[in-house]
Amino acid sequence: MIQDLIAGIDIGGTKAAVAIAIPGGEIIARTSFPTGANRPAHDVVDQALTLLADMAEAHESRLTAAGIGCAGPLDLEGGIVISPPNLPRSWRQFPLRAIVEAKLGVPVTLDTDANAAVLGEHFYGAGRGYSDLVYLTISTGIGGGIIAGNNLVHRLGEAGHVTVQPAGALCGCGARGCLEALCSGTAIARRAQEQLRGERPSMLRQMVSDGRDVTAKTVEEAARAGDDLACEVWQDTITFMAIGIGGIIASLAPQAVILGGGVAAGAGEFLLQPLRAELRTRVRILPMENVAVLKAGLGADSGIYGALVLGARALQTARS
Amino acid sequence: MIQDLIAGIDIGGTKAAVAIAIPGGEIIARTSFPTGANRPAHDVVDQALTLLADMAEAHESRLTAAGIGCAGPLDLEGGIVISPPNLPRSWRQFPLRAIVEAKLGVPVTLDTDANAAVLGEHFYGAGRGYSDLVYLTISTGIGGGIIAGNNLVHRLGEAGHVTVQPAGALCGCGARGCLEALCSGTAIARRAQEQLRGERPSMLRQMVSDGRDVTAKTVEEAARAGDDLACEVWQDTITFMAIGIGGIIASLAPQAVILGGGVAAGAGEFLLQPLRAELRTRVRILPMENVAVLKAGLGADSGIYGALVLGARALQTARS
Repeated sequence: MIQDLIAGIDIGGTKAAVAIAIPGGEIIARTSFPTGANRPAHDVVDQALTLLADMAEAHESRLTAAGIGCAGPLDLEGGIVISPPNLPRSWRQFPLRAIVEAKLGVPVTLDTDANAAVLGEHFYGAGRGYSDLVYLTISTGIGGGIIAGNNLVHRLGEAGHVTVQPAGALCGCGARGCLEALCSGTAIARRAQEQLRGERPSMLRQMVSDGRDVTAKTVEEAARAGDDLACEVWQDTITFMAIGIGGIIASLAPQAVILGGGVAAGAGEFLLQPLRAELRTRVRILPMENVAVLKAGLGADSGIYGALVLGARALQTARS
Repeated sequence: MIQDLIAGIDIGGTKAAVAIAIPGGEIIARTSFPTGANRPAHDVVDQALTLLADMAEAHESRLTAAGIGCAGPLDLEGGIVISPPNLPRSWRQFPLRAIVEAKLGVPVTLDTDANAAVLGEHFYGAGRGYSDLVYLTISTGIGGGIIAGNNLVHRLGEAGHVTVQPAGALCGCGARGCLEALCSGTAIARRAQEQLRGERPSMLRQMVSDGRDVTAKTVEEAARAGDDLACEVWQDTITFMAIGIGGIIASLAPQAVILGGGVAAGAGEFLLQPLRAELRTRVRILPMENVAVLKAGLGADSGIYGALVLGARALQTARS
């Protein structure tokens, strides 16, 4: 008997993941491949679809719908990738949904990687059982998705661009002091590198051959080892995060805030424990004991799981 | 023929409003009365219900459901007023929904005044036609409600308590630099009063007999007249608002932000025009030309209109 399955595609700056799953259920097969800095968008899509077709055939199944999570900004109505800063130029104005729909011959839902990730965490990860949650990915940049009353808030918000230091560092977006400009992996590394230009001693100098090689991970490791300078950079990160995330908590009163992405996944409780403490001093209007601050349950897989949720929705919409 | 109508009750710190309306349609009759600093909660409720009964009788109609907007915090599930800072002590732990349900004998929906106001603006006011909007009331305090995808975000968020100046003025909530601590009517007046303690000349001194009598309205009037000190206080207000409201816009990407409450309603474009300009410099990640920044369409009536929307929902829920 041929089984009807859902396809999921998660397209990021460095890799793409594909998976097939039972509608609303478990993953049957999955794989991923590098997207490469110079690979044309069409190439990436073709490889994803070939992999999906092979997987479907190997499992004697048929794909009935697909969901795609992709780095934004997107034109959700048109299903078009507009101008993703982390993808090659060939992705600009790329009609991703229409192309996949035409090639697979099934209904397709496209959404941002952040929205896919919050759906993934909500249905399969740390967000299960919460009707109202915020997901933030803290990696090269900072992005976020919101579930309110069990529904995805379907606007393309940019939680990384709340202001946390009004006259602070210039952000890539053009504004000053955005959460992303101070707390992304890139920003944590930059703040440490700035400190290293002074005379202050730090083991960070011994950990890298060149100060410019310091990353958020190096800072985390040196802070764990008790290095003063690194501890200060890490503590500032916590303070800035508490201001930005605290504002999101105050205005939305979610039941849970889930942190994913390389920085949060790597640091785990070394980030979350002091962050919870700082949030309690920053957010006084709401009982913070009712807000769970959690690490993403699916690690780097929130997005591909979310793409499968999007696929299941495409199927539902097509059937209704 | 006896007509079936909805009742709405809006309970605020200084007055209560009541109205009867056709379900989902126009208001048939309305009135309001002072709640008074020392009037027991039961008294206020009894007067509201007596007025509603009289109005219903005068219009040969029968009340089939009621909606109530009330100053929070509330226990929404239990329908209980918990400990509203702007209402007398007799409102603490007051089972408002159960009492009104018992006395009227109809289904009742209770929500916060801010949620009622955003519903009112969404269905009857400046928010008509927008699926995603944020309503902020800027008066003695600052509160807010959010509609996402045409649904009320039903968590009790406190948009007045996003941080806009991390080490800034202490807020009533216990945190520092909240939007409310800097931009509420009370806070605008306080910042002007602080400035007046210095030597700087200002027409504000001539406008009041005692510096402590300066209000947000006095500051607005002096700023309109070009008074330097007042202009600076007003400009700081705009700057702080743009940081706080900008963060809410960035994370939610609403189609519209609607400002109500005494300060916003009174100042109108004198507040909104520079605020829009400042928001364009503060929010760079999203196209601000797609975000309408508007004055509340219903003025002080957003809440009572919203209470009627809540009443229509109580009826719907009871029938389904």
